[in-house]
Amino acid sequence: MSPQSFKTSLRVTWADTDAAQVVHYSNYFRFFERTEEEFYRYLGFSFLDFRKRGLWFPRVEAFCQYKKPARYDDLLEVELTVEELKEKSAKLSFRIANKETSDLLATGYVVVVAADKESGRATWIPPEIVEKLKPFCK
Amino acid sequence: MSPQSFKTSLRVTWADTDAAQVVHYSNYFRFFERTEEEFYRYLGFSFLDFRKRGLWFPRVEAFCQYKKPARYDDLLEVELTVEELKEKSAKLSFRIANKETSDLLATGYVVVVAADKESGRATWIPPEIVEKLKPFCK
Amino acid sequence: MSPQSFKTSLRVTWADTDAAQVVHYSNYFRFFERTEEEFYRYLGFSFLDFRKRGLWFPRVEAFCQYKKPARYDDLLEVELTVEELKEKSAKLSFRIANKETSDLLATGYVVVVAADKESGRATWIPPEIVEKLKPFCK
Amino acid sequence: MSPQSFKTSLRVTWADTDAAQVVHYSNYFRFFERTEEEFYRYLGFSFLDFRKRGLWFPRVEAFCQYKKPARYDDLLEVELTVEELKEKSAKLSFRIANKETSDLLATGYVVVVAADKESGRATWIPPEIVEKLKPFCK
Repeated sequence: MSPQSFKTSLRVTWADTDAAQVVHYSNYFRFFERTEEEFYRYLGFSFLDFRKRGLWFPRVEAFCQYKKPARYDDLLEVELTVEELKEKSAKLSFRIANKETSDLLATGYVVVVAADKESGRATWIPPEIVEKLKPFCK
Repeated sequence: MSPQSFKTSLRVTWADTDAAQVVHYSNYFRFFERTEEEFYRYLGFSFLDFRKRGLWFPRVEAFCQYKKPARYDDLLEVELTVEELKEKSAKLSFRIANKETSDLLATGYVVVVAADKESGRATWIPPEIVEKLKPFCK
Repeated sequence: MSPQSFKTSLRVTWADTDAAQVVHYSNYFRFFERTEEEFYRYLGFSFLDFRKRGLWFPRVEAFCQYKKPARYDDLLEVELTVEELKEKSAKLSFRIANKETSDLLATGYVVVVAADKESGRATWIPPEIVEKLKPFCK
Repeated sequence: MSPQSFKTSLRVTWADTDAAQVVHYSNYFRFFERTEEEFYRYLGFSFLDFRKRGLWFPRVEAFCQYKKPARYDDLLEVELTVEELKEKSAKLSFRIANKETSDLLATGYVVVVAADKESGRATWIPPEIVEKLKPFCK
């Protein structure tokens, strides 16, 4: 059975662009993050829930490959897949396409670690999160 | 005796610009804030010191008038004056000029309130801060 | 007859926040702008259409009054009204509320000028735009 | 002979931080870029010079590994090395350290391609740029 993916749409706003009249390269990472946030909201939990439980999820790696530029007013579709799910970390991969033309614009990933808020140490991803992530795993 | 002003320089970076090939209008407020931070550093205190003492300094008003656009790579000079100093708030005004051409690019202000971190209520600006701000008051 | 207003919703994302765990004060101006963009899209034109016709709409003033902080994950409702419509400029005012609690978080405005892209000079707002803006005027 | 590296310093500003009270992960890419800009300025050319000659330098890949968080007010030192110099592209690598503690905070790279502004096609990096980059190559 192929893994599920999670998709969300977002509109490029003027503030996302730079003087090359394309989306600034750092903002794709913000698009990844907004998608991750929507994904957690869809699964029924949020960064804030995690934090209340003394957990946070710092990124330890981030990567993006840029294929074609996104421009102001473009409607983007971002697709998230759980590329790898380990005991203490997850690798989330992303594909950003232009929703109207279907052109692939960028692909990338972030590696997120579960960490104890006090000690800063890596810790186990709680089992109820693992359960919810499984259908999205490759 | 005319008031002292505090001046600092900053370079426009690519990420500050937007697709109109000028600095995005929201970023002037970030330039104001960086100047304010440099000013506090110059006076010998920082946002962090304040926070440790249970104080924070939320902005309650912000205004900017845009005269001429700043562009990528421009070297800016930002001048800060204490426009008004009250018991619980201060109005800091800013002038942003192109340092090479001396063209005035923007003027504006922020009103900052001293607030108790727990209650969120406005509180007195500590006397040692008031002393240090006085020479910069109009 | 009371003026129409235009409303849109937006979700506070992690990147909008700062170390005070509230939305950074400069980002309210980005929320204003996103609302303006949605408004133009709703009216059937975009910044890009304008630019193709040699017109652009630089901001000459921006103001925001902060009432209560917006926080990560808050769902905001932004309301836009055309406060003033002149031959060459428009003053757009905004109210940002928490959509769930209805708390008013911020109010503000931007003054936008129609300008000729080549000369940079202020110019007439095209009549078809004026027509579409009228129902939203105070 | 070991390669030269280029170093610059930058101060973490309030707007760089997020609600986890650390620098937002996307902003390290802005720090990379500011360092790249300073490097080109040091070498005597700028993004703008390139653009006037019909050349631009889009990023095709970006990567960052996060070791320790940078916080508000930290003074950072960013070191740039030319990791790989090809006919049409360059891989620039970066190390970000806390300048006061010498702690390594992040490492990463960007792959930049020389491209013709009109066609968007990859093109040769001009020989005078290649000459200036050579001493910084691994």
